[in-house]
Amino acid sequence: MTRLQVFGVEGLPEITEGTDLAALIHAAASAQGDPLADGDVVLITSKIVSKAEGCTVELADVEPSEFATRWSKRWDKDPRVTEIVMRESKRIIRQVGPVLITETHHGFCCANSGVDQSSSGAHGRILTLPVDPDGSSRAHRARFVELGVDVAVIMTDTFGRPWREGQTDIAIGIAGMNPLYSYIGQRDPHGHEFHVQEICTADELAAAAELVKGNTSRVPVAVVRGHDWDRDDEASMAPVLRDSERDLFR
Amino acid sequence: MTRLQVFGVEGLPEITEGTDLAALIHAAASAQGDPLADGDVVLITSKIVSKAEGCTVELADVEPSEFATRWSKRWDKDPRVTEIVMRESKRIIRQVGPVLITETHHGFCCANSGVDQSSSGAHGRILTLPVDPDGSSRAHRARFVELGVDVAVIMTDTFGRPWREGQTDIAIGIAGMNPLYSYIGQRDPHGHEFHVQEICTADELAAAAELVKGNTSRVPVAVVRGHDWDRDDEASMAPVLRDSERDLFR
Repeated sequence: MTRLQVFGVEGLPEITEGTDLAALIHAAASAQGDPLADGDVVLITSKIVSKAEGCTVELADVEPSEFATRWSKRWDKDPRVTEIVMRESKRIIRQVGPVLITETHHGFCCANSGVDQSSSGAHGRILTLPVDPDGSSRAHRARFVELGVDVAVIMTDTFGRPWREGQTDIAIGIAGMNPLYSYIGQRDPHGHEFHVQEICTADELAAAAELVKGNTSRVPVAVVRGHDWDRDDEASMAPVLRDSERDLFR
Repeated sequence: MTRLQVFGVEGLPEITEGTDLAALIHAAASAQGDPLADGDVVLITSKIVSKAEGCTVELADVEPSEFATRWSKRWDKDPRVTEIVMRESKRIIRQVGPVLITETHHGFCCANSGVDQSSSGAHGRILTLPVDPDGSSRAHRARFVELGVDVAVIMTDTFGRPWREGQTDIAIGIAGMNPLYSYIGQRDPHGHEFHVQEICTADELAAAAELVKGNTSRVPVAVVRGHDWDRDDEASMAPVLRDSERDLFR
């Protein structure tokens, strides 16, 4: 029987550009008495990856477009932040009232291109999503393997969704394991084909991780132990991103 | 630090109408050496609730409408099943090719009103979603309390979603705890207001549960242990269902 443990990794210092995140996480897990083990899934909040990779934009350097300026004025927003949101996007999916839902360059559909607006006030600097979340996750996984543990890595972010209130954590980058588990062609114990065809286990792992990360202390890393995954070094989030041709809501 | 255990409850017999589900789950958990404990969250797949409540429709009794017949013929579907899907819905959100996305009477947006089409072939009978998932969950919780354990109950189903491939389990009924956790007004360790406003912990718990339920044996019940929740006997899924006026994708 599958039995999971889910726990946070605490005690990470403030992350700055160039930080060796995987080494830091590896050490922090050991320090709290939970050394990483082969088969663990390590879930890293995108925000600290952005910090480690220097994915920041100085507000002072941003020259907003006329469009960004006009819309921002109308909705009492900082036009420089709007400009960054637009630069981080491939296209605008919905722009209704003060809400801006975009498709990011990576192909994620979310509010404000995943730009972390909460970070703006303090430092005049805005955090953007990592440029290549799969690539970053692969690099983290490679570093963990180098440190002696064969773990899967998932980069997570907190997104809203249509139809339902409340955000949930989902996967935006992955390494080592496939994000989808397929039941196609399998049959249940009664011989019926499954109603469910494919489960996005990566998003479910991200959600499970949020339950231990998400609280006022905002632990940025969690581990899921006991999840059975097949090693695939070619894995990426690509199969989760629905083709816009096949999408009824874009 | 929050530390979760997630495990399935195995060994449940085939569920038939009138089954005392909570008592069965309580006994099965004990039998496998994992007796339920105060504070557990018990996640029950809607399918077995539908079975216990007799939420089935005999295909032989269904007279499909002209609309259902015409559309089903075109897409090689059973018009009686389409008729059931339509009867279970408040309105059709998208009908494109063979895909039918509806809003159920409860207010859930999903494919085919959550009607379990995989169950049709074998018995000439179709399973529909429970009529009142919050009410059923409350009844299950009351029964668990009667049996001596103060647990929260979440009813889950497997839904697709816009933009992303792969389904995930989400909550469709709840009892004992609120489905949303709000950060509004709280501040992070640096004094910034949270970017995230509200997390749908109920959906994240459902997702975590699927990781232990979802495999070829399809364990229909899981327990999350270690999640901190505040007791609220008025809790329901209502605050998760976004108002269609506020919804940009309906």
